[in-house]
Amino acid sequence: KHIKFIEIPKVHDERGSLAVIEKDVLPFEIKRVYYLFDVPSSSYRGGHAHKEQESIIIALSGSFEVIVDDGFSRERIMLNKPTQGLFISTNVWREIDNFSSGAVCLVLASTTYNEAEYIRDYQDFKNHVTG
Amino acid sequence: KHIKFIEIPKVHDERGSLAVIEKDVLPFEIKRVYYLFDVPSSSYRGGHAHKEQESIIIALSGSFEVIVDDGFSRERIMLNKPTQGLFISTNVWREIDNFSSGAVCLVLASTTYNEAEYIRDYQDFKNHVTG
Repeated sequence: KHIKFIEIPKVHDERGSLAVIEKDVLPFEIKRVYYLFDVPSSSYRGGHAHKEQESIIIALSGSFEVIVDDGFSRERIMLNKPTQGLFISTNVWREIDNFSSGAVCLVLASTTYNEAEYIRDYQDFKNHVTG
Repeated sequence: KHIKFIEIPKVHDERGSLAVIEKDVLPFEIKRVYYLFDVPSSSYRGGHAHKEQESIIIALSGSFEVIVDDGFSRERIMLNKPTQGLFISTNVWREIDNFSSGAVCLVLASTTYNEAEYIRDYQDFKNHVTG
């Protein structure tokens, strides 16, 4: 499965909510953490796939939509809950748009940055996955 | 040094801001990620120290204050920028309060959960660090 939802364990009490990611919550070790913030609502991000990196995307604040495409079909997924992670495997084209005001997009990834494992052209991506 | 600020590298363009944590940005590997959200503004969190775990605290949205205490002196630090990380070493008592509306507190930690390395009583903590 190219994508799946991961429910992030949460403890809620009168002091607020605490969500925890460790050990078996993710199918990989975390090598890279990045986050998007101060995103204009008209903004559009992404437009790439990874040959090696897997990741999980979480809407820590506000909401946005993730477009995922495995080269055969395309799906649009709204993320708007801090406990709902979207796991994305290798070889999935992804784009992000429709950011709400104040949205924060957290991404935990399985590898450090390596430009060589990015696919940044959609036609190259199609050839890669369908070839 | 028990605490220090870590400036998180950021790329800013017309699509928003992207902050990245990998490799040498942190002095440890990330074994645990947790975050606080939906925190009532009157809330108070923390009141513990770690014998083994180091961590970095980041205000991904909104603001809050972190009280850090090394057993000899106490300091109150406001966090309100997604690119400003507060590194906290072992044997530092910490509390968090004064959360703004919509605040999100992200913590990246060096170890998985282990109750045995927590110090949850302040007098025990004082004895541990000054004893």
